[in-house]
Amino acid sequence: MEINSNFEALEALLDTKNYRALREVLSDTNEVDVALFIEELPVEKAVVTFRTLPKDMAADVFANLSSETQEVIIGSITDRELAVILDDLHTDDAVDMLEEMPANVVKRVLRNATPDDRALINQFLQYPENSAGSIMTAEFTDLRRDMTVEDAIKHIRRTGEDRETIYTCYVIDEQRKLDGVVTVKDLLLAHDECALDTIMDTDIISVKTTEDREEVARLFSKYDLLSMPVVDHENRLVGIVTVDDAVDVMEQEATEDFEKMAAMLPSERPYLKTGVFSLAKNRILWLLVLMISGMITGGILGRYEAAFAAMPLLVTFIPMLTDTGGNAGSQSSTLVIRGMAVAEIQPHDLLSVLWKELRVSVVVGAVLAAVNYVRLIITYPGNEAVALTVALALFATVVMAKTIGGILPIVAKLFRADPAIMAAPLITTIVDAFSLVIYFSIATRLLAI
Amino acid sequence: MEINSNFEALEALLDTKNYRALREVLSDTNEVDVALFIEELPVEKAVVTFRTLPKDMAADVFANLSSETQEVIIGSITDRELAVILDDLHTDDAVDMLEEMPANVVKRVLRNATPDDRALINQFLQYPENSAGSIMTAEFTDLRRDMTVEDAIKHIRRTGEDRETIYTCYVIDEQRKLDGVVTVKDLLLAHDECALDTIMDTDIISVKTTEDREEVARLFSKYDLLSMPVVDHENRLVGIVTVDDAVDVMEQEATEDFEKMAAMLPSERPYLKTGVFSLAKNRILWLLVLMISGMITGGILGRYEAAFAAMPLLVTFIPMLTDTGGNAGSQSSTLVIRGMAVAEIQPHDLLSVLWKELRVSVVVGAVLAAVNYVRLIITYPGNEAVALTVALALFATVVMAKTIGGILPIVAKLFRADPAIMAAPLITTIVDAFSLVIYFSIATRLLAI
Repeated sequence: MEINSNFEALEALLDTKNYRALREVLSDTNEVDVALFIEELPVEKAVVTFRTLPKDMAADVFANLSSETQEVIIGSITDRELAVILDDLHTDDAVDMLEEMPANVVKRVLRNATPDDRALINQFLQYPENSAGSIMTAEFTDLRRDMTVEDAIKHIRRTGEDRETIYTCYVIDEQRKLDGVVTVKDLLLAHDECALDTIMDTDIISVKTTEDREEVARLFSKYDLLSMPVVDHENRLVGIVTVDDAVDVMEQEATEDFEKMAAMLPSERPYLKTGVFSLAKNRILWLLVLMISGMITGGILGRYEAAFAAMPLLVTFIPMLTDTGGNAGSQSSTLVIRGMAVAEIQPHDLLSVLWKELRVSVVVGAVLAAVNYVRLIITYPGNEAVALTVALALFATVVMAKTIGGILPIVAKLFRADPAIMAAPLITTIVDAFSLVIYFSIATRLLAI
Repeated sequence: MEINSNFEALEALLDTKNYRALREVLSDTNEVDVALFIEELPVEKAVVTFRTLPKDMAADVFANLSSETQEVIIGSITDRELAVILDDLHTDDAVDMLEEMPANVVKRVLRNATPDDRALINQFLQYPENSAGSIMTAEFTDLRRDMTVEDAIKHIRRTGEDRETIYTCYVIDEQRKLDGVVTVKDLLLAHDECALDTIMDTDIISVKTTEDREEVARLFSKYDLLSMPVVDHENRLVGIVTVDDAVDVMEQEATEDFEKMAAMLPSERPYLKTGVFSLAKNRILWLLVLMISGMITGGILGRYEAAFAAMPLLVTFIPMLTDTGGNAGSQSSTLVIRGMAVAEIQPHDLLSVLWKELRVSVVVGAVLAAVNYVRLIITYPGNEAVALTVALALFATVVMAKTIGGILPIVAKLFRADPAIMAAPLITTIVDAFSLVIYFSIATRLLAI
């Protein structure tokens, strides 16, 4: 089904300069796989293969290439070839490409676009990063409310070729304001003579160009949409987002959350294609911040030097205690952060989360403390006081860790900070300090040291 | 755009028994929002509201309700009403519902389905959990290769009403084997008299009923699909998966990975709707496992009791050292686990990942060690040997943590274990033990204790 296994056969055709056969195989292959094949080739073969493609595939394959390969290909083709590709390329793909190109390439590309496309691309390039405007495309099907179903179907058959999707059509008035939505399914199931305004849906789910793209993806998932209209601040239709782009946003946002929750700056590129220094840069900042917080914890520990000098055994329980606290806290923070990312937990749920985490943590803490107490009595007979100290400290640590872990992400959100930042590493560092204070306070009281 | 703010107005109509107005407003409201409104209502009002819905909306709204509310509604409606809903419900939604119902409800539901639906539902209920078969639906549009475009469009107009999607149609032969795929766009852009087999696409992306649903979702994302055919082991078409269900799978799988990576058993239900004991149960197992590993770390620490009894200052650097090691390791493991989840990193990339992590860790480790050394010389003047010990131990810990963090998830995958299990908590526990050994080995040598 996927052609990865055929890459060698394709390369053989290329090596023997059997371009006609190559073209034939490629034209029957999915554009995504053709792009993957081209990515694997050395530069010169990549360009040759790209030029072998049938004209009607070139733009689709081009849109699926990495920006590096796109740049190489632009640098190797004529202005005329470039113009043909640009003409077939959807605005969102053209904009994605240009955002990654150096200025001289952007200039040449824009010079070879038609004036209309150039204006559109320049407009789309203005939308802020991560906005609905930055992921929308201009190739949608617009209809008028006074059309009949028959008119609409004819219009679609005449203009559909260049559209990113024809399945959801947008009914607009003279000012291009959005009046309604009609799907091709509605059209095909209605009578030819029906007027569009009798079958169109006026309960329209749309977003403004400035809306966060994450919210756009959330609406796609909530309402099971195939495409969504994007309007400007006068409610004029300027573009659409299609579900494939919404899916990309969901995956990217999830990846960013994974990265932030593991104390990294989010990266733009896939791991294997990111350089060593840029990977290191993304990781160092948070490690430094957390290392410095770790030093503060060390300072707290320093205050109890007398206690563990008197009873060195106490030190051996520190890793178990702080790790369990960190793990218990990050369980809670992870559930809450993810719940907020998929809009299932809202900031006004703060008290429900607090109440739930308190009860869960009492159950979890009691079980862990009991297991630990039994284990310590068996391992260190005669040291019941130490066993009790460790068990009590563990219980208190779990309750404290889970409560903090559950509510800190919500508090962050209330202060308009990113909840994902409040994840495992930061919770661990905070919980470490508290758990040591709890542990040694209990120890100094119970053990009289 | 969303109606949450109108819930009060709707409830007022309900309280004043103004059912006609309620029905009118609801019929203009998106089914997803109607379902959300019903979920918020007390049981009796929920049933009344559901019965107020226009017939053509009832099944769509029903499919969007939680299984608790579905059960309440099934228990309150007549067999006749139930039969009408079942007739309109797609197979995938019927199966999702039945999987959550007690046996007597399942019995009653199946008794009220048509014999054909009953057979289909029984067949679909057999597919293993998390397989393509478990998320597919039977309401697809099938065509024959000897149809013309005109025939096909007529067929779609006649049968499309009940289909989950009409936009991708499947061309099958007499044995129901899948021959090709044709989209409504292809049909509308072709001439009426064209034969289907001249325009259909035969490079079909399909999956077997037993394929993992995660792989299905990956193919949707890779090829930007709207729907995908599911075939049995004789290549006979048995169902389709639509993109909205693939999106749900992506979100659920990401949520499960978040949960596993924070040391929890994955949960089936949203956080706020999960009970305290079932949340506690999902969390205790891994905490216990990690707590016991933490005890092993404590045992290792115990071997150096003499060292930190002689120099208690050493103890104060332990939290900083182990936390930084844990964080550095989980950065690497998270990137690799996520990279594998989106199929960007494959097991055969093991050596590239190892080589990359080694280099990144040297850079990161050197920076952190240098910052630490300078800080210690300033804070503890005259203690250069301690500063050097801590800096060296930190460097070695970071390199060790990142190398282990980067390759353990891949090794897990090679042994067919879930890579997500090798995440932050487990890496932290492993790294803790190693970093303490490194730290005290360096300390005993450099400080002669």
